[in-house]
Amino acid sequence: MANYTKILLREDEMPRQWYNLNADFPTPMPPPVGMDGQPITPEALAPVFPMNLIEQEMCTDRWVDIPEEILGMLRIWRPSPLYRARRLEQALGTPAKIFYKNEGVSPAGSHKPNSAVAQAWYNKQFGIKRLCTETGAGQWGSALSFACKLVGISCRVFMVRISFDQKPFRQMMMRTWGGECVASPSELTETGRRILAENPSTPGSLGIAISEAIEQAVQDPECRYALGSVLNHVMLHQTIIGLETQKQLAQVGEYPDVVIGCAGGGSNFAGMAFPFIGDKIAGKQVRILAIEPEACPTLTRAPYVYDTGDCAMMTPLLPMHSLGHTFVPEPIHAGGLRYHGMAPMVSHGVQLGLIEPQSIGQMECYQAAVQFAHNEGFIPAPETSHAIASAIREAQRAKEEGQERTIVLNWSGHGLMDLTGYQAYFDGKLADYALPEEMMARSLSALEGLPKPA
Amino acid sequence: MANYTKILLREDEMPRQWYNLNADFPTPMPPPVGMDGQPITPEALAPVFPMNLIEQEMCTDRWVDIPEEILGMLRIWRPSPLYRARRLEQALGTPAKIFYKNEGVSPAGSHKPNSAVAQAWYNKQFGIKRLCTETGAGQWGSALSFACKLVGISCRVFMVRISFDQKPFRQMMMRTWGGECVASPSELTETGRRILAENPSTPGSLGIAISEAIEQAVQDPECRYALGSVLNHVMLHQTIIGLETQKQLAQVGEYPDVVIGCAGGGSNFAGMAFPFIGDKIAGKQVRILAIEPEACPTLTRAPYVYDTGDCAMMTPLLPMHSLGHTFVPEPIHAGGLRYHGMAPMVSHGVQLGLIEPQSIGQMECYQAAVQFAHNEGFIPAPETSHAIASAIREAQRAKEEGQERTIVLNWSGHGLMDLTGYQAYFDGKLADYALPEEMMARSLSALEGLPKPA
Repeated sequence: MANYTKILLREDEMPRQWYNLNADFPTPMPPPVGMDGQPITPEALAPVFPMNLIEQEMCTDRWVDIPEEILGMLRIWRPSPLYRARRLEQALGTPAKIFYKNEGVSPAGSHKPNSAVAQAWYNKQFGIKRLCTETGAGQWGSALSFACKLVGISCRVFMVRISFDQKPFRQMMMRTWGGECVASPSELTETGRRILAENPSTPGSLGIAISEAIEQAVQDPECRYALGSVLNHVMLHQTIIGLETQKQLAQVGEYPDVVIGCAGGGSNFAGMAFPFIGDKIAGKQVRILAIEPEACPTLTRAPYVYDTGDCAMMTPLLPMHSLGHTFVPEPIHAGGLRYHGMAPMVSHGVQLGLIEPQSIGQMECYQAAVQFAHNEGFIPAPETSHAIASAIREAQRAKEEGQERTIVLNWSGHGLMDLTGYQAYFDGKLADYALPEEMMARSLSALEGLPKPA
Repeated sequence: MANYTKILLREDEMPRQWYNLNADFPTPMPPPVGMDGQPITPEALAPVFPMNLIEQEMCTDRWVDIPEEILGMLRIWRPSPLYRARRLEQALGTPAKIFYKNEGVSPAGSHKPNSAVAQAWYNKQFGIKRLCTETGAGQWGSALSFACKLVGISCRVFMVRISFDQKPFRQMMMRTWGGECVASPSELTETGRRILAENPSTPGSLGIAISEAIEQAVQDPECRYALGSVLNHVMLHQTIIGLETQKQLAQVGEYPDVVIGCAGGGSNFAGMAFPFIGDKIAGKQVRILAIEPEACPTLTRAPYVYDTGDCAMMTPLLPMHSLGHTFVPEPIHAGGLRYHGMAPMVSHGVQLGLIEPQSIGQMECYQAAVQFAHNEGFIPAPETSHAIASAIREAQRAKEEGQERTIVLNWSGHGLMDLTGYQAYFDGKLADYALPEEMMARSLSALEGLPKPA
């Protein structure tokens, strides 16, 4: 293994349990609450999610068995390879070792199918016939279309309009897997119609798309809603990434000094980071970095509050960092990072000082992505480029300090469906964009009157 | 391993030699010749290719060592996984076992980088600073751009103008890897300028693009030409596919009854099939199927002749099945299978009865591709769908006959850059197209007066 490029696990070495960080937080997370500030009951969520997933959402067991049928579907692309980015290290002239976990090997090209196959399977088990969901850049929508086709239920995806228009190929992917993709806001829901009436040319937002999907789900007893990030059970399903990575690093006798993931809703970050945060709580020295775009600085600039996951306030109030549920971010190319909130578990980790958030502008991210593609070959998704940019910063700091350092990043997906962003970058059409203070203040005003986490 | 989905090899199990079928053909291939019918000399090829690759082109050693640096680049995505298509088998209700070798895991998404990294490296070794090539659909152009960036030489790709205009995403891939993609015909060459003067709105053709690339290569002593298929050394580089497959099948105690690849210029087919043809020559019972589109029936309907690789007759005459160098195939979506000729080694294998050619219409291929995506998850390239369609035919025949059968197909690439074809299929805009007899007769008339293979 001396000169390895990537570390593979055999299929029988794939983890058979998910890791639940909720068992190990030094202080427990505040519960989701209603508008009255009272914790919500499982029954209140029943029109939206199947009960088996609601139980998982509230579970505090440290380890959760992965059902055999889900393991079977995960084996289509898992265990995913962990790469040592030797060419990138060399190009940077750094003493740091950079490892990246390639989640782009899934059929949909990202980490999203890790939770999609699980959610589709649990819904099918519960007797559900149809799933509704939202998608930003299209990663989650295509992952869920793929998963629903595998388990044999149908799938409708509300896709944020700006992405729907800019990313026709994602729509075609969903269609190829039998998914139905609708631009959001749409005429199919009351929420969509209301927003279109107010602003017919709105680019849409994840918050709006979530409202539409939930509205459809609650009106149809055979339909439920599936969310690709934010919720505890989604974080849980993604932990297979970090669990595999721990095994792979152990095979070559490494343990990270720094673990890095990009964070939009939080799922790919959590998937990689949570098993290492478990180690950290148990006493290991490891830094955990969550990287977000400057255009959507949820963790770095927004307060920790109770807020809804959607813009129409149909979801319970979740304890999280939030820019306010009416926030509509700039149309940056990293569509998957354009979300007003952040997973409660990730937000809680930041509150407890277990996670260091960072924000990076998109120019530095594209520069990092191109440097990565030139040296490592694979073209990263714009979201993933945030983790790469941060890893390069860490590697350069290691060089300046003349210190070895082991850096692990979650390479959450490939950018083959996002090449227009690269084109715009090469053509000099992109610029950095930091969220203006007054715009943030305005969107935060949507939080007034809501209960506050203790 | 009882319930495996895919069979992986460790990096240190990757083959370290290529297999050369030219060592084992029962009768040797006719040589490439000039217009006078005389075998061409290595020196005659020197302005076009570096001498180390010319030597490889003419080599008859059975095994050729893969240089360490090339192995290092191949390890970015190799060994590639061999999958058992259990869900597809189940959907077909067949007693057959279907295995597919996933060459879509490379950064460029197809088998093409197997030869691209080798060619780029040999050129660099020979002191070459720039490569020129042509590309139709863009698979080869993107693979070579990726490879040239890795080894550190520059790359110019002449892309057939109609594809250049219709497939902007392939251009963006090349650009992201630092390749320069030029619409052909271009103002950069005499050939291009002449053709543009005659017809400024020409859509271009692969023949014109090859002529432009060769013209540039021969005029610049630091530049050479690289071809993504057809030639012996390209077939050689691709044999790592079949060699890995043999090891992987041995791990689960299997040997194929049928080996299937799609065939355009022949490189992915040869890569999978040649090691098994070696076995067949040594006495193994195995059927080898080469699948081509009905729109471009080179092996199934065209004669075995001497013909040039380009339409301007700048290349030597190669002994091959050919529809005539002026043949312009229908614009089917499997762009990589639209070539008038076929690799001399593949053509020779058909002549010797070692390979069974088949042609399949594009509707059956798209149907097979969608069935594959719905069951196995991965979305195949339109080219690859030809191999899948044939494998499904074999599996259905096994069912009718009530017989077990082990089928291995080369899954040459993913279709994420070719989703417009799926869109057209779903929209009912595609139809079958068999090459009309009189059109074939017309294109074959270009062969009149050329020498014939003995």
